[in-house]
Amino acid sequence: MKNSETSAINLPVQLAIKSWTGQVNAINELLKKLSDDDLKKEIAPGKNTGYYLLGHLAAVHDAMLPLLGFGSKQHPGLEKIFISSPDHSGLEFPPLAEIRKIWNDVNETLLKHFNELTTEGWLERHTAVSEADFATQPHRNKLNVLFSRTNHMSYHAGQLVLLKHS
Amino acid sequence: MKNSETSAINLPVQLAIKSWTGQVNAINELLKKLSDDDLKKEIAPGKNTGYYLLGHLAAVHDAMLPLLGFGSKQHPGLEKIFISSPDHSGLEFPPLAEIRKIWNDVNETLLKHFNELTTEGWLERHTAVSEADFATQPHRNKLNVLFSRTNHMSYHAGQLVLLKHS
Repeated sequence: MKNSETSAINLPVQLAIKSWTGQVNAINELLKKLSDDDLKKEIAPGKNTGYYLLGHLAAVHDAMLPLLGFGSKQHPGLEKIFISSPDHSGLEFPPLAEIRKIWNDVNETLLKHFNELTTEGWLERHTAVSEADFATQPHRNKLNVLFSRTNHMSYHAGQLVLLKHS
Repeated sequence: MKNSETSAINLPVQLAIKSWTGQVNAINELLKKLSDDDLKKEIAPGKNTGYYLLGHLAAVHDAMLPLLGFGSKQHPGLEKIFISSPDHSGLEFPPLAEIRKIWNDVNETLLKHFNELTTEGWLERHTAVSEADFATQPHRNKLNVLFSRTNHMSYHAGQLVLLKHS
């Protein structure tokens, strides 16, 4: 972590990025322990598979690129399969090895952009809110997306962990 | 949310508190839909019950009071049952109605303290880190505890939701 006095990112924002990175790392540690066969199982009877949840996380993180103004989605095809549709939709999933790679790549890309944004940049509106709405709702900024997506990751991490062998 | 320009709490910290509150509210909405019988079930075969998880969340939040310098725990007996011991330990659990009440009370107390802390206060060390360590590790502050406990809540929310009737 950079020293807050010499960084363009203030300490609260640095900590928010650290919180995000901590959750990414926790999921990556978990994924090392889960085989493809593990991920193909349901987290609980009748619930989502690990396969779907990892695809869902990758798709949601990919969608953060345009939402935060970092560029286009790298894998736009994921949204239909893993966000608009539920698990067991009948749509064909990309191979798990590919999903694992996309998950890593998109997180690497995001972190690179995160570290280039200043505190002021984090407090700018995200692309899903209009300038007019943002004028009266200044909390609808990029930092808020970071918080929301970090919680989203933790939520699904708590589900993926159920696939681990005890 | 207060306006950041007139508040002693800056916008990133306000957003962090909002993120916490959002997770508390999400769990409360979920708890309205879960009966005591629902909570007594395991989230997945052989895993924790909702009863244990709610007790665990209440105990962890109660322990935030001394950790953040807000005072003593209000329910020190919870730690042994819901933090030091796993589920199915044989220890007697307080009645679920009591756990639900403690959960609400401790969150109300925490939020009151959260809103009284300034940005500088949030960036002070938490009570589990020494002054010497904090001098070289300024991220070990109260705000970091807030992030960590918000993620912890989301993690278990992702598990409690599995008890919901589909």
